[in-house]
Amino acid sequence: MNLKEEALKLHEENKGKLEVKSKVKVNTKEDLSLAYTPGVAEPCLKIKENKNLVYKYTNKWNSVAIVTDGSAVLGLGNIGGLAGFPVMEGKAVLFKEFANVDAYPIILDTQDVDEIVMIVKNISPGFGGINLEDISAPRCFEIEKRLKKELDIPVFHDDQHGTAIVVLSGLINAARFLKQDIKDFRVVINGSGAAGIAISKILLSVGVKDIIICDSKGIIHNERGDLNSFKEEIAKLTNPRDLQGSLKDAITDCEVFIGVSAANVLTKDMIKTMSKNPVIFALANPIPEIDPEDAYEAGACIVATGRSDFPNQVNNVLGFPGIFRGALDVRAMDINEEMKLAAANALAGLINEDDLVNKKIIVDPFDPRVVESVGNAVKDAAIKSQVLRI
Amino acid sequence: MNLKEEALKLHEENKGKLEVKSKVKVNTKEDLSLAYTPGVAEPCLKIKENKNLVYKYTNKWNSVAIVTDGSAVLGLGNIGGLAGFPVMEGKAVLFKEFANVDAYPIILDTQDVDEIVMIVKNISPGFGGINLEDISAPRCFEIEKRLKKELDIPVFHDDQHGTAIVVLSGLINAARFLKQDIKDFRVVINGSGAAGIAISKILLSVGVKDIIICDSKGIIHNERGDLNSFKEEIAKLTNPRDLQGSLKDAITDCEVFIGVSAANVLTKDMIKTMSKNPVIFALANPIPEIDPEDAYEAGACIVATGRSDFPNQVNNVLGFPGIFRGALDVRAMDINEEMKLAAANALAGLINEDDLVNKKIIVDPFDPRVVESVGNAVKDAAIKSQVLRI
Repeated sequence: MNLKEEALKLHEENKGKLEVKSKVKVNTKEDLSLAYTPGVAEPCLKIKENKNLVYKYTNKWNSVAIVTDGSAVLGLGNIGGLAGFPVMEGKAVLFKEFANVDAYPIILDTQDVDEIVMIVKNISPGFGGINLEDISAPRCFEIEKRLKKELDIPVFHDDQHGTAIVVLSGLINAARFLKQDIKDFRVVINGSGAAGIAISKILLSVGVKDIIICDSKGIIHNERGDLNSFKEEIAKLTNPRDLQGSLKDAITDCEVFIGVSAANVLTKDMIKTMSKNPVIFALANPIPEIDPEDAYEAGACIVATGRSDFPNQVNNVLGFPGIFRGALDVRAMDINEEMKLAAANALAGLINEDDLVNKKIIVDPFDPRVVESVGNAVKDAAIKSQVLRI
Repeated sequence: MNLKEEALKLHEENKGKLEVKSKVKVNTKEDLSLAYTPGVAEPCLKIKENKNLVYKYTNKWNSVAIVTDGSAVLGLGNIGGLAGFPVMEGKAVLFKEFANVDAYPIILDTQDVDEIVMIVKNISPGFGGINLEDISAPRCFEIEKRLKKELDIPVFHDDQHGTAIVVLSGLINAARFLKQDIKDFRVVINGSGAAGIAISKILLSVGVKDIIICDSKGIIHNERGDLNSFKEEIAKLTNPRDLQGSLKDAITDCEVFIGVSAANVLTKDMIKTMSKNPVIFALANPIPEIDPEDAYEAGACIVATGRSDFPNQVNNVLGFPGIFRGALDVRAMDINEEMKLAAANALAGLINEDDLVNKKIIVDPFDPRVVESVGNAVKDAAIKSQVLRI
């Protein structure tokens, strides 16, 4: 049986991947009178007096809504929320299995930005955090921005920040390996969707000065007339050498290529025009921008991909479980930039000198240290940056 | 420790009553590639081709949203969704423990009817059914009506129909005990909220001809100028003797009193004006309309209450777990009148002649036959009335 058949079998035999379980038993009338009426009136009245007690008497403290409109599911595109449902259940499985977070899929029947914001806002009381998932760019930027402003619980679009955090952790270690300052890397990012924009922003935030972003039409620069407002904004912050042209023009003399784009768009010839010891993140899934073997042949120093069958996998499961674990544990009201950087640094720190010698720059998804390490770092950053509930 | 303290302790120690569990293990890279990417793309693509396959590859088939706006929580009134959260978790616990239904609380931050309808409609793809809970009358009637029309999954307001179904089951057995035809009962219903209106409607549907409903201002009749549209509608269908006046006027010569109102509003003197062998449902919680002892002293033949410490408890847990179990098992698109009546008859049928002799008209909440019996009856009724998904 091949992977596709096995995957279908797993989903069919289990009839889905999630269930909602009770943490209390109800075997007697007395159980019933404590878990339900009349006893349940007591925690209700306590919460009515002090709304923060909802964190004490319900599971809100540990619950995350995985919200999707199905507009950008995996590499499958806009297949709609219903068809994206197995992905959302899978995400909830990872939340639980990796970090004991109780996550529940919210599958939306609308792709209207105003409606999505209104709906998520109005169902938010039941959750301790919101994980936006597989919502297409540029809509995802506005939805996240508005919800972060409106809500006092963390809102986190994993396709953006989860990917950016893991990429940054790898790049920190590539700089360690090369004994360079990450700030001095010239970076080209191919792809200006959710992940591409978020990666550029997190790299800017750590001081990387020379970033060029390409979309399907080539280098993003201030004189292009076809940019949406989010690309316009990022155009102002990137491309300091004011380049115009294609990916081929952008990549010349760069130290780092980060692809969040499409299969096979990076050629060996392009890599040969990069600076000495180039670092290649070829993250398109399932087929990377260039085959890692080809990349090494063309002179790449270190290669990372999105695939589990190559070393240095950029896998979001390294991020979101620990990030939410940390945020939930201190009842943070946001997942802010400080917390994201702390997560990236924590991941980077799990790579030791022996790993580095072997060009291992990204920790393994099943490394048992990941969730605790990321969670603690995020917790500390939340405390320091004062986003805790009073 | 008293009940209140014990209830708080239970909620605090468990940190809420629910958790979301994975039905699959993720211990290896292979597990990850089947439950999540890349394998998960397969069920997504299957559902994209045929949306009904979502019932095969996700947990939609077994999942129910417990939706509340917190406008009428238990006997606590309009305490808001957040304060009602422990009740919704409790309800989900009962769904799971009694009928293995995966129910999840959706706590709304709005009490606007249009917004609630819009929100529930747009989150419905993730659920196999909608249980509306603790939404105040008359708003609940409109919300349910509109959602039933818009959605192709069952929508069921338990405060209305769950209560009505259990009351009907008791009344069927009271008629058996008294060797009377239920249609000939003269019934007074005190309380015209969600439960009162639903009870009157289900009794009308089984042919009860003489029903009088009272609200806090007395008998509901066509000439009252202060009725909302739902009370106006029910006024046309009830009160065939065109009575006006108070509860005291209504109850004279009636065989059945059903109180879904407030503590101690029924007096012994009122019962004495009823017909011979009156049946008293005093369902106000926690303090009934009349103490059962007092009711018997005044001549009541059979008494039911909402309390677990008296016989004949009208407890909604007799209804909703089995009703949703049956509806979900056949993927019914609705919970229609036939299914509700089937549930009531199934519950009534669990009372045998020995029970009846002892004036036991309502089955015990922990009777192990309940869920299967109700579930099968609802299933059969769904099949017969053709509300199945094609």
